[in-house]
Amino acid sequence: MTDEVRYYPLDRLREFTARVFAQLGMPDADAGTAADVLAASDSRGIDSHGVARLRAYLDLFRAGRMNPRPSIRVVRELPATATVDGDNGIGLVVGPWANDLCLAKAEAIGAAAVVVRNTNHYGIAGYYPLRALARGLIGWSMTNSSKLVAPLGGAERMLGTNPIAIAFPCETELPVVIDLATSAVAFGKIEIAARQGRPIPPGWAIDGDGNTADAPDQMWDGGALLPLGSSRDAGGHKGFCLGAMVDILTGVLSGANWGPFAPPFVLTQPLPPRGVGRGLGHYFGAMRLDGFLDPAEFRRQMDDWVRTMRATKPAPGSPGVVIPGEPEWKAAAERAVTGVPLDPAVVADLRYVSRQTGVPFD
Amino acid sequence: MTDEVRYYPLDRLREFTARVFAQLGMPDADAGTAADVLAASDSRGIDSHGVARLRAYLDLFRAGRMNPRPSIRVVRELPATATVDGDNGIGLVVGPWANDLCLAKAEAIGAAAVVVRNTNHYGIAGYYPLRALARGLIGWSMTNSSKLVAPLGGAERMLGTNPIAIAFPCETELPVVIDLATSAVAFGKIEIAARQGRPIPPGWAIDGDGNTADAPDQMWDGGALLPLGSSRDAGGHKGFCLGAMVDILTGVLSGANWGPFAPPFVLTQPLPPRGVGRGLGHYFGAMRLDGFLDPAEFRRQMDDWVRTMRATKPAPGSPGVVIPGEPEWKAAAERAVTGVPLDPAVVADLRYVSRQTGVPFD
Repeated sequence: MTDEVRYYPLDRLREFTARVFAQLGMPDADAGTAADVLAASDSRGIDSHGVARLRAYLDLFRAGRMNPRPSIRVVRELPATATVDGDNGIGLVVGPWANDLCLAKAEAIGAAAVVVRNTNHYGIAGYYPLRALARGLIGWSMTNSSKLVAPLGGAERMLGTNPIAIAFPCETELPVVIDLATSAVAFGKIEIAARQGRPIPPGWAIDGDGNTADAPDQMWDGGALLPLGSSRDAGGHKGFCLGAMVDILTGVLSGANWGPFAPPFVLTQPLPPRGVGRGLGHYFGAMRLDGFLDPAEFRRQMDDWVRTMRATKPAPGSPGVVIPGEPEWKAAAERAVTGVPLDPAVVADLRYVSRQTGVPFD
Repeated sequence: MTDEVRYYPLDRLREFTARVFAQLGMPDADAGTAADVLAASDSRGIDSHGVARLRAYLDLFRAGRMNPRPSIRVVRELPATATVDGDNGIGLVVGPWANDLCLAKAEAIGAAAVVVRNTNHYGIAGYYPLRALARGLIGWSMTNSSKLVAPLGGAERMLGTNPIAIAFPCETELPVVIDLATSAVAFGKIEIAARQGRPIPPGWAIDGDGNTADAPDQMWDGGALLPLGSSRDAGGHKGFCLGAMVDILTGVLSGANWGPFAPPFVLTQPLPPRGVGRGLGHYFGAMRLDGFLDPAEFRRQMDDWVRTMRATKPAPGSPGVVIPGEPEWKAAAERAVTGVPLDPAVVADLRYVSRQTGVPFD
């Protein structure tokens, strides 16, 4: 299918996305914000979280599962904290709103943490630390999500892939951007193996009985992804701990649904058997560099850090150490020239979205 | 060797430790604090980080590598932040001092982050969130440490095992306590395999050429531990990202030594080729529950969270899901009755410490 991939300029995808969101009833400014979040994902090579998801957002709006004009508000607050209620808005708008609040609080007093409930999927976790970077801050971002991952020792889905992201500025090197799901692999890797008709290696997933899944459909049919570390021997309990940490900070602390009760992202998934809160949950944190160290000194040290890590003696057969964020910066530079490659299934989805909304695509 | 294990009451070990530290020149209050941190480790079953390390601390003091009477001070501060200079004190004193500062700041304005430079090993990361819990706060703790772990794709030690800890209170269930090294396995697991003359499984470590280490001594002789996730296929880059995050937050942000330049914990390890800061680095964070949610509601939801996760269908051959912190609470309850089991090598070390300091042991 590689030869069928088509390239689209990022700006055109962003504009299409913004017009679609506006057509779905979102205020223009919100539609632009949401389009920016998806475009950041497409730009950075994280194809699963960009326009490839537009149809799923459309479906959720059409089914009345998300509120296109939310009244986002702070429901609890201290100088360095807040809980935001997203009024069931799209996470691509609620997330940036709450993250901006967190950044403003950190700018005022040095550091802050803001949690969000009654929200929905917010795109790539790494988008939010990039906004912090643009304001000279260190930013954290985490979210819970619909269940896909088994706790270590368990045989069923109980947690989302619950990502953690944080970014650090450098002086002349590109910023270090960390954005990782707390599962061993992304669900997208299972999908790719399925498309290619390949088996999946041990350590990725289990079937519905809790045994190692060898084929992608064994995971799909009631199986689950494994937490980072995969097995007891190799630290799979640590991956579970990290997924749990994210679930508690984003879901429990905010008053959102947590664990297996997080609402599903696609209409084909069943609703959870009970609600324990409102919507999904996010967590944002922010810190002023000058609350800790001279910012110029920090950035110089980060340059040294990046170069030191890059100079690590490579393992046999390895191209060497990859600095966190480097592949995404490379993709962004390439895609600024080539445009964003979309595979035929995504193009077909966008044409469907175009027909449904009347917004021209191509 | 199991039958040679001897049991010692925790209070007796704590008192011995405090007297040793005082004998080494520490003020009595500091000696008591340091002994508390080690005792927490022995109580909770983390045998590697308790009195088993007393001899290494003695060696560092005797070699003039640590300052027994540090002037710990804040060198930079905003309402929600601080950088603490530990004046090259023992981490078991500097850590609690800085953590307490962080807790006080969070109590005042809802959340805070405090980093520390010019410090040394601070015991178990999980000790600090337990202090936060005792004051009704959520606490984070991280530290860097001397190099043992290769970045994914690398063939040499560049990072410490760089732990992350955080804890959450419940209403009637025991608190959820997360405390994990960002390596696939602890160095202690390599030591145990060596004692038992067993090989080590793939995914734990590499040898000095960067190939999989099958025997413990292949790791020792210039090899390295692997990051959590172990291989590219199973998410080893994520473990590297987590180790990097801890290294940057604790080491770079505080002005401490980072990465391969972190000072060694034992005298037999060579000093790093250059210094890039002062001592080791820690990071503490704290958050008031009521900055986000009604604390009673949070604790009730946490009870539900714990019971829900515990009720996960178990995988075949597994006793089921282990709640983070549960094994440590169980150890603490058992050891309150049985005392702390010490193996003969540790008892011999403590007798050595006793002879060196004149503090009676047994």
